Amino acid sequence: MGDIQKELELVNNRLKEWQGKSLSLNMARGNPCHEQHRLARPMFDVITSTTGMLCEDGTDAMNYGSPMGIPEARRMMASMLDTDPENVYVLGNSSLNIMYEQISRAMIYGVMGGVPFTRQMYDNPEQPLKWLCPVPGYDRHFKITEKFGFQMINIPMDENGPDMDMVEEYVNNDPTVKGIWCVPKFSNPTGCVYSEEVCKRFANLHPASPDFRIYWDNAYCVHYLTDEHPQIPEILSLCEAAGNPDLVYEFASTSKVTVAGSGIAVLAASKANLEDFKKVLTVMTIAYNKVNQVSHARFLPDKAAIEEHMKKHQAIIAPKFDEVLSVLEKEDNIGEWTRPKGGYFIAYKTPKGCAKRALEIAKECGVTMTSAGAQFPYGKDPDDTWVRIAPTFPSVEELHSATEIFVLAVKKAYLEQQLNK
Amino acid sequence: MGDIQKELELVNNRLKEWQGKSLSLNMARGNPCHEQHRLARPMFDVITSTTGMLCEDGTDAMNYGSPMGIPEARRMMASMLDTDPENVYVLGNSSLNIMYEQISRAMIYGVMGGVPFTRQMYDNPEQPLKWLCPVPGYDRHFKITEKFGFQMINIPMDENGPDMDMVEEYVNNDPTVKGIWCVPKFSNPTGCVYSEEVCKRFANLHPASPDFRIYWDNAYCVHYLTDEHPQIPEILSLCEAAGNPDLVYEFASTSKVTVAGSGIAVLAASKANLEDFKKVLTVMTIAYNKVNQVSHARFLPDKAAIEEHMKKHQAIIAPKFDEVLSVLEKEDNIGEWTRPKGGYFIAYKTPKGCAKRALEIAKECGVTMTSAGAQFPYGKDPDDTWVRIAPTFPSVEELHSATEIFVLAVKKAYLEQQLNK
Repeated sequence: MGDIQKELELVNNRLKEWQGKSLSLNMARGNPCHEQHRLARPMFDVITSTTGMLCEDGTDAMNYGSPMGIPEARRMMASMLDTDPENVYVLGNSSLNIMYEQISRAMIYGVMGGVPFTRQMYDNPEQPLKWLCPVPGYDRHFKITEKFGFQMINIPMDENGPDMDMVEEYVNNDPTVKGIWCVPKFSNPTGCVYSEEVCKRFANLHPASPDFRIYWDNAYCVHYLTDEHPQIPEILSLCEAAGNPDLVYEFASTSKVTVAGSGIAVLAASKANLEDFKKVLTVMTIAYNKVNQVSHARFLPDKAAIEEHMKKHQAIIAPKFDEVLSVLEKEDNIGEWTRPKGGYFIAYKTPKGCAKRALEIAKECGVTMTSAGAQFPYGKDPDDTWVRIAPTFPSVEELHSATEIFVLAVKKAYLEQQLNK
Repeated sequence: MGDIQKELELVNNRLKEWQGKSLSLNMARGNPCHEQHRLARPMFDVITSTTGMLCEDGTDAMNYGSPMGIPEARRMMASMLDTDPENVYVLGNSSLNIMYEQISRAMIYGVMGGVPFTRQMYDNPEQPLKWLCPVPGYDRHFKITEKFGFQMINIPMDENGPDMDMVEEYVNNDPTVKGIWCVPKFSNPTGCVYSEEVCKRFANLHPASPDFRIYWDNAYCVHYLTDEHPQIPEILSLCEAAGNPDLVYEFASTSKVTVAGSGIAVLAASKANLEDFKKVLTVMTIAYNKVNQVSHARFLPDKAAIEEHMKKHQAIIAPKFDEVLSVLEKEDNIGEWTRPKGGYFIAYKTPKGCAKRALEIAKECGVTMTSAGAQFPYGKDPDDTWVRIAPTFPSVEELHSATEIFVLAVKKAYLEQQLNK
């Protein structure tokens, strides 16, 4: 007991030093940094007052129309996802918004002529509709399904992806299960890349409900941190080969390729799914921003150009991840953490029951991180253990300090817990 | 009878001549023309690879955030609508999409804590929810409310706006009435400008249903065709003064100011309405395209700049309207038509029962116009009489030919009708 008390005092003293510096460091959101944005700036010179604005099919990018996207943008985004242009619609600026909209339409109109989710919810108020949520996962996914009123089910993840026994058990037997959130490549926040076997088991699901869909958020499909480029199978063709062509909606955007929030976003799906969507799409709007589609397609016309561009991102952010990891390796003898090969996050695991308190302590020393629990539905991490570290935005120096503080904060939280045992 | 036969032969001969020319003229959609788009091209030089991208409040336009819009874009769009920046959210590229979304959210979540429209629909399947549709009106408005399953009610319009006795009768007594479509200034397609009295009666409605809203689509707020600039009262303050601050949602975009389909769009509403929206907005997306907001706000920072810019539009399209009107005045002794002072359309009235047939005949001669009935809910013009003429896109020469053909087509349709009587 005396030892713990003593160690806690040491930690407290070091934290007080940090507190005295009145820092304000933010490792909360996966925002690209200024240097990354500079990479996209040449795109702003692609279109000037004298640039030709006709698209490849003769469409005038400066007039109404083409709500499914212009051909060159569809080709560009299809190449990024290793699929065919006819499988993709290029829509607005936000893939998250496309996901929201897919569910919103299912709520009101149903999926492919099925009973609207709202109606299914009203008809059986004691039987809520369910959504599977691999955890830890992306807080903004969970906020969407929470808002729509789904009962969210935690699905544990390991280094190969979600627990597929559990996924199959739910999806293949329970008709109230309507969807699952997946970030298959460099998962948010663990960085896990779904194994080929996991992807195949997804494609071979036999949903009890015909309106079940996999929400395949391929947000980090070209976002590598090392020269090793782990791949996942292309999900649309995998589902088709399995006789399940309509099982999946795939999403992506260029927010972390060109400009965060001002990129172009894509929905990839089977012909039947796209046709189902189109019936509402042509009512929802007349067109998305085609000028931005032209900018993107001329700036990064194909996958080779995108990959070349992403190497520049890697050069900027990989050292930031390395900095966090090296401080953790040097200073931290309490937690566990991931060493991602891509994506935007390091996932950190404190001892049980310490995450929330650790983040409080870090906050008192000026370090803001995604709130504890945010990686879980309803913001509730049952073990209070996961922390998401987002190293892309701060500078290497800031990350150094922030990680040192974070390590001390975890130590303090853990020692306090030991003392109170 | 012989005279009619003879006249019909004359008309047929003239139409045959036109048919021989294999024209392809389109007066169907309200698309700006190439010359108008050229006016917006300098906007593409506003942002280059070296432009500062910080917004007035310090927000980086190249990163996530600010889903309600950046301050300068909110101020710009507020000035266009003669309201305050805090009353507007600047969102995506499409005001039509904002309208769709407002109803979509009301369907799923209800309005300000009210019962969701889907639930109201399910609970009383024999009692459909209603939407008031001043006619003739905008086909894309009607498509939205048709898609959501509202029963649409035709409200006749005159030169002062909708029949307010009928509007009051419905809105103030029938709790199943949830909304009304309005294009208050240079209405699509009649060009009518709502009178002050009509606007005041709108602001003083006492809806039987608390979730009723006026959908005030101020699409042509700065779109004049003459130097006379008819004005309508600012609707938000009018509603507030009437003790009904939450009664109205107002919409507009720059699609017909800068770039069609790639502009910025706005929702203006009371604080309570915006707060109600914000709860979902922050779940729906992380941000709209702020780069485009910066371009717009720097290109056309205030109402004076917008009005100066709109004079250039007027100089391009007013002669087109004049051409159509002068051919009609010279050649047409059968129909009636409007002489709009702004907006994008001329509304034309054939004798009863002739519109559909006239457009068929025009089509055979290579002239495409918005299909007959499109200006009415469900595509059904009860009198088969209204035709919408969209003169902005074709050249003056094309408009001359197209209008001559159209006049002949109406004449033929009318003569055929007389013969068959």
